[in-house]
Amino acid sequence: MAAKLSKGTALIGQSGGPTAVINQSLVGVVEELRAGLVKRGIVKRVYGMRHGVNGLVKGDLVDLTRYPGGTLRRIATTPSAALGSSRDKPDPDYCARILDQCKDLGARYFFYIGGNDSSDTCRIVSELAAGAGYELRCFHVPKTIDNDLMGSDHTPGYPSAARFQALAFMSDSMDNASLPGVKINVVMGRHAGFLTAAAALARGTGKDAARNGPHLIYCPEIPFDSARFLQDVERVYSKLGRCQVAVSEGIQDANHQPIVATLLKFLEKDSHGNIQLSGVGALGDALADHVKNNLKVSGSKLRVRADTFGYLQRCWPDPSPIDSKEARAAGKMAVKHAARGEMSGSIAITRAKGKVYRAEYQLIQLTDVAAKTRHMPEDFFEGHCDVSRKFLDYVRPLVGKLPVMERI
Amino acid sequence: MAAKLSKGTALIGQSGGPTAVINQSLVGVVEELRAGLVKRGIVKRVYGMRHGVNGLVKGDLVDLTRYPGGTLRRIATTPSAALGSSRDKPDPDYCARILDQCKDLGARYFFYIGGNDSSDTCRIVSELAAGAGYELRCFHVPKTIDNDLMGSDHTPGYPSAARFQALAFMSDSMDNASLPGVKINVVMGRHAGFLTAAAALARGTGKDAARNGPHLIYCPEIPFDSARFLQDVERVYSKLGRCQVAVSEGIQDANHQPIVATLLKFLEKDSHGNIQLSGVGALGDALADHVKNNLKVSGSKLRVRADTFGYLQRCWPDPSPIDSKEARAAGKMAVKHAARGEMSGSIAITRAKGKVYRAEYQLIQLTDVAAKTRHMPEDFFEGHCDVSRKFLDYVRPLVGKLPVMERI
Repeated sequence: MAAKLSKGTALIGQSGGPTAVINQSLVGVVEELRAGLVKRGIVKRVYGMRHGVNGLVKGDLVDLTRYPGGTLRRIATTPSAALGSSRDKPDPDYCARILDQCKDLGARYFFYIGGNDSSDTCRIVSELAAGAGYELRCFHVPKTIDNDLMGSDHTPGYPSAARFQALAFMSDSMDNASLPGVKINVVMGRHAGFLTAAAALARGTGKDAARNGPHLIYCPEIPFDSARFLQDVERVYSKLGRCQVAVSEGIQDANHQPIVATLLKFLEKDSHGNIQLSGVGALGDALADHVKNNLKVSGSKLRVRADTFGYLQRCWPDPSPIDSKEARAAGKMAVKHAARGEMSGSIAITRAKGKVYRAEYQLIQLTDVAAKTRHMPEDFFEGHCDVSRKFLDYVRPLVGKLPVMERI
Repeated sequence: MAAKLSKGTALIGQSGGPTAVINQSLVGVVEELRAGLVKRGIVKRVYGMRHGVNGLVKGDLVDLTRYPGGTLRRIATTPSAALGSSRDKPDPDYCARILDQCKDLGARYFFYIGGNDSSDTCRIVSELAAGAGYELRCFHVPKTIDNDLMGSDHTPGYPSAARFQALAFMSDSMDNASLPGVKINVVMGRHAGFLTAAAALARGTGKDAARNGPHLIYCPEIPFDSARFLQDVERVYSKLGRCQVAVSEGIQDANHQPIVATLLKFLEKDSHGNIQLSGVGALGDALADHVKNNLKVSGSKLRVRADTFGYLQRCWPDPSPIDSKEARAAGKMAVKHAARGEMSGSIAITRAKGKVYRAEYQLIQLTDVAAKTRHMPEDFFEGHCDVSRKFLDYVRPLVGKLPVMERI
């Protein structure tokens, strides 16, 4: 049964923090539109919005209707948002301007790739259009390295960023074994610990898994206690003579105060009202000082170092192959649902039952994902500073093949 | 002509900051020993020193004479120092203990993989042994991501770390184009700018090379002026609407004072008397604050971020294939020179004349490399904040194939 579809323009945009595979989703949307609705004469023009809805309201658009296919395929494998991204969080007035622009452009199809803030933009625009009686099909294509979208098994962008953590902690653990000491690595993730937890993959599955780092993992979901942290480090250090620590940038105390808040003099706020934690080495430095000043170790001077991985986590050009594939498919699925006549929704990746990993794609309601945050479930943790076997079984199939590291 | 060689033990150690390929050199030495001097019955035992000469004086050794070949081959591809490394800088008393241990072990062959401090240890031990009339063949196998050893075209470890910079700046430049602003990345390198300079590879050679980052490159060899830095950033930002900056951790002012010294309250010294600059986000944060506080940009609030790449630079598990090959060969060459009857020396990689890149291996005197620092030659720079075409021609063949990134 062919759905009745209005002829019009299709808009596509990218929003929020870029990832290694967000351009796969962009190219997925464009390719599927061209292969379907454009070919059928329903969509006349495919416009990319420069820097998300910011480009839409400013009229900064790029025509992708006949953009060279070879270039598109190279864009798909390029990290970060090729159309440009945006941190704008549209208020009702802003959304009204978005809708006005859609009407002016004769847009009937609106695809927005992003995280929970972006799905909320999608929801508001969709509701405004419906309220105004203007037919606009609004679809959210999921993207976030934080893996914190409701309704999904995991989110495009996360597997590649998780792969980065595995590679980084694996190599850094070898470095830490070469020149022993306490090494603290600060990982992105304000509210959800999925990315920090992925560091556990670095231990591998071989004979050295029990002594490989990371030895301690701290996520925002479990209250961080500075005194207990020292005891944890001391316990590991006294056993192994070294200690590698994975810490989420968003760790909080029992009163839900960010640990970094008590340590940083200067806190900048971004336009979403979140505290800006990335690109700042202060949390790692402060934790390192805390260990240096308070940990009692007999013998030689304790070597303590901290790294804050920063933006490389979300753009490193070695994506998980599964992530690349799924991000492309998620973009295509959004277009397929629009072509079937659905009015709005968000694409969720779920995991097929069975021993072999396989992704399935569901259409869920925008209200089920918009502006909500998913956290690590309790059974993904083991104690207060480690992840469970269940989490490892969850994350391992996502990240692709990892190198094997050998010790003497 | 077969040289007259004393029968005895061979010692092998790793020292200084680990690299992605230092284990290639270790395995090169061990394999070449086993294939030659061990087979010929001249070397009875091959001992690895745990944590360099520190393990030697403590008697912490590992027998590699018959260590499984398959394990060795996996160790070769594992980043960081498999024997453990050391930051010890032996004084005369320490070196006397090293010599005593060599005598006790009947060691006649001493191979030490490391940078300029390690070559100096090699030199002192060699001279002490000669002075004591004890026959000990001492060879230094070069290793440093800083690329600052005299007598070499480049040093094993540098090509892989340079590759990391290319990949990091390339991806981060795309991220910076997605969410425009000023992005400052702090790169390892206390005295020599080779590694920071390698960021220029990220621009690629295609149509976008002129607008791709990094847009500004600051190395320790050229005095850093904070006011001129602001002018540079403003010039780029006003033209491109963004600016990606590569800064060496060792940048200095005209009076040879580290820029970071004026910005950090707390400076830790490592046992070589060098200021500890890695693992500390303070330089990047301070430079970012400097730009935020002083750069006048019309329109919206300027977005400024800083990352300090930290230890991942020297251990990332994606080495340059040429680096892996050369590091292995450098280890083998040291053994070959010992087997030919040479008493001591350091392996230097030089570049064969001709259009196609090819490495050659020379034996140079320990005194030519020990405790000396090579800097970027003047003709590798272009102005005060860029590298020359000559530098790019020098570095490009070393790093292996790089991904191509595409823009809309």
